[in-house]
Amino acid sequence: MRMYDIITKKRNGEVLTDAEISFFIDGYTKGDIPDYQVSALLMAIYFNGMNEHETSYLTMAMAQSGDQIDLSGIKGVTVDKHSTGGVGDKTTLIVAPIVASLGGKLAKMSGRGLGHTGGTVDKLESIGDFCTELSPEAFIKQVNDIGICVVGQSGNLAPADKKLYALRDVTATVDSVPLIASSIMSKKIAAGSSCIVLDVKTGSGAFMKTLDDSILLAQKMVDIGYSVGRKTAALITNMDIPLGHAIGNSLEVIEAVNTLKGNGPADLTEVCVALATNMVYLCTGKPKDECKEMVLGAIKDGSALDKLRQMVKAQGGDVARIDNTDLFPKAPVVVDVKSRKSGYIKHMDAEKIGICSVILGAGREKKGDPIDFSAGIILSKKTCDYVNEGDVIAQFHTSDASKIASAEELFNTAIVYSDEPVPAPTLVYEIISEPSK
Amino acid sequence: MRMYDIITKKRNGEVLTDAEISFFIDGYTKGDIPDYQVSALLMAIYFNGMNEHETSYLTMAMAQSGDQIDLSGIKGVTVDKHSTGGVGDKTTLIVAPIVASLGGKLAKMSGRGLGHTGGTVDKLESIGDFCTELSPEAFIKQVNDIGICVVGQSGNLAPADKKLYALRDVTATVDSVPLIASSIMSKKIAAGSSCIVLDVKTGSGAFMKTLDDSILLAQKMVDIGYSVGRKTAALITNMDIPLGHAIGNSLEVIEAVNTLKGNGPADLTEVCVALATNMVYLCTGKPKDECKEMVLGAIKDGSALDKLRQMVKAQGGDVARIDNTDLFPKAPVVVDVKSRKSGYIKHMDAEKIGICSVILGAGREKKGDPIDFSAGIILSKKTCDYVNEGDVIAQFHTSDASKIASAEELFNTAIVYSDEPVPAPTLVYEIISEPSK
Repeated sequence: MRMYDIITKKRNGEVLTDAEISFFIDGYTKGDIPDYQVSALLMAIYFNGMNEHETSYLTMAMAQSGDQIDLSGIKGVTVDKHSTGGVGDKTTLIVAPIVASLGGKLAKMSGRGLGHTGGTVDKLESIGDFCTELSPEAFIKQVNDIGICVVGQSGNLAPADKKLYALRDVTATVDSVPLIASSIMSKKIAAGSSCIVLDVKTGSGAFMKTLDDSILLAQKMVDIGYSVGRKTAALITNMDIPLGHAIGNSLEVIEAVNTLKGNGPADLTEVCVALATNMVYLCTGKPKDECKEMVLGAIKDGSALDKLRQMVKAQGGDVARIDNTDLFPKAPVVVDVKSRKSGYIKHMDAEKIGICSVILGAGREKKGDPIDFSAGIILSKKTCDYVNEGDVIAQFHTSDASKIASAEELFNTAIVYSDEPVPAPTLVYEIISEPSK
Repeated sequence: MRMYDIITKKRNGEVLTDAEISFFIDGYTKGDIPDYQVSALLMAIYFNGMNEHETSYLTMAMAQSGDQIDLSGIKGVTVDKHSTGGVGDKTTLIVAPIVASLGGKLAKMSGRGLGHTGGTVDKLESIGDFCTELSPEAFIKQVNDIGICVVGQSGNLAPADKKLYALRDVTATVDSVPLIASSIMSKKIAAGSSCIVLDVKTGSGAFMKTLDDSILLAQKMVDIGYSVGRKTAALITNMDIPLGHAIGNSLEVIEAVNTLKGNGPADLTEVCVALATNMVYLCTGKPKDECKEMVLGAIKDGSALDKLRQMVKAQGGDVARIDNTDLFPKAPVVVDVKSRKSGYIKHMDAEKIGICSVILGAGREKKGDPIDFSAGIILSKKTCDYVNEGDVIAQFHTSDASKIASAEELFNTAIVYSDEPVPAPTLVYEIISEPSK
């Protein structure tokens, strides 16, 4: 078998065989096939696509290219959640405890923040002393004991995807639905849970810019999941504007705790309830309205918050801060940002606001940069709100006062005003929880 | 400027600017842009093409990436000829002396044989003592003295094309009309002649397998030539079967001499007259039928053969062999190949017959392999001929009798018979000597 012939086939619009996909993924992972042949194949896939079977097979080949987490020691139904990435997205901190409190088994690996989006692992570490590195045995034991454990990614998950993604990123071959779908699903499949709920963000702050593309991607991922024996659902949610009011690590934990107490922002609560409902649905198979009642009940009766508390305690974190969020260290510099105009807020650019939070110290521009856990932004106003010039629209939290000016300049370019009232944005556009056939 | 953005533009079907094409060619030639980005761009060009201006600009960028031969010291109109490669193609040995005898200036660089096709430089060296390496000064002086000089390629002509071609060859991006056209024309333009006649071979033994593709490629190259100030014509000729009867270096020189004496095979003579006519047409601007009369006259009155003799003498070759081709060394082993069937010869696969000649020692599989100048094949029968089982259809010439059996096996698979008479093949399908607009 020759890589040249595989490129030619896909270039000519033909379907690759399983053996050809394995040859390409194995050879590339081992370093036997050079980047320049793979990038030519990726561009051919960009133009000619992959059918459902090719995409599923590619996904499994990448999932099997490295470690695969063995969750067979967990009693009960394991369920994972993945977001395609957003600003102010603290949903894992909320939905994971909710679902665990209802009997789902959350054996979850999460990432760190990079660029304009944050990461769950950084947020958890802002709690103080929270341990995100556990041995496989301790990880499984904690899930069996309390139903939930969230750690950083460890091991060598889907190295083929890692290598391919790095190549796609420099060869303009990222925007291909089969390549995106197989990339996301390969990691989730290697991570081992039997149920997977995907939060596909759409809009200016997200990967997929249009709703149609997002639906296509979501359905493709659900199809892949079912084709390899994982119950999978995908929610297409709004990432035109940041989710909730808080952006920044400890600020987001505080907002998550408030949401678990039933006092969270309406948009964040709505998205979290929808995600958790679908996770419970996949785990139990119960009717969705019943699942939703269970989710609302777990918030109302405090069992979801208690589950977060149990996890923080089990992983060595500072439980006192969960019990009293005033104990989180405060940023030394807190500055009100005032509106420069009067009008209805028509749009808040999530990506730009995410970059503001990085400027203030809440994120990292490159891997390994330190993070200021207390830094970030509280949005006092959101899309649809009417503001007068001079009204406070946000609060900046930082340790470095010198960063305020540039962050404020960028922040102002992120806000678009309108003289007319602005209709409330849709938060959950679509839920796909069945394979397409 | 970033290569990533250039790939994205072409991927999205946009037109690249001159600056973008220069950035890509300069950066790739210098090694600043990696293969994996270039192969992604090449595949995007395969799918989305290049317009006429992009193709011309790419051609010039590649022509200017290395040495450009300065022929300004030559008095008169310089004219070059290029063939896309074929089996038994000794046309340069015939048309160059014809055109030089009629006043055209042939300052020609030719290549060596590789794979199933031969090279003019090897054929010339089979004459004995023929020098194919001259200083630039000696090269120019000889053209001014006698109107013709054929040497091996020297210097660093179009290194960007060389590097790109090697990459295309392993990434399934050879078959793209703008990439083929710019590759061929960049080398011809760097070689310096002001008129260029292209022999675009079509058929089973050639690069372009269909007539439509060949016409498209030919017109594209003519357009490029005129757009950069070179008078250019392209002939689309048959390479379903080998040209003439002789394949192999000294065997082809003998056939060329016979053709210059007016005793050549009809197919070879027809193609050479057409090529030479168009070269004279580009040089003089005279009506084509007048040019053809001049060409036929140069054969008839012996002035073309005399020109070949002058060149061989000027370059130190053994003129006696031109005067008496019986003086060429003979292969020690000459074997008749007999037909295994009776019938009309419907097809003779040029590529397979070319490989047979390599097996017999007439060519090289990789650069630097030695060549047996007297080895090769004489086809006693050609397409359309009727043969009885046991008739001699070819003669194998070799120094190594052990190769006969395997060459004969392959040769037999190259011949297709028919019970019905076979119509005579068209030799020159199309002549394009004007730009498309």
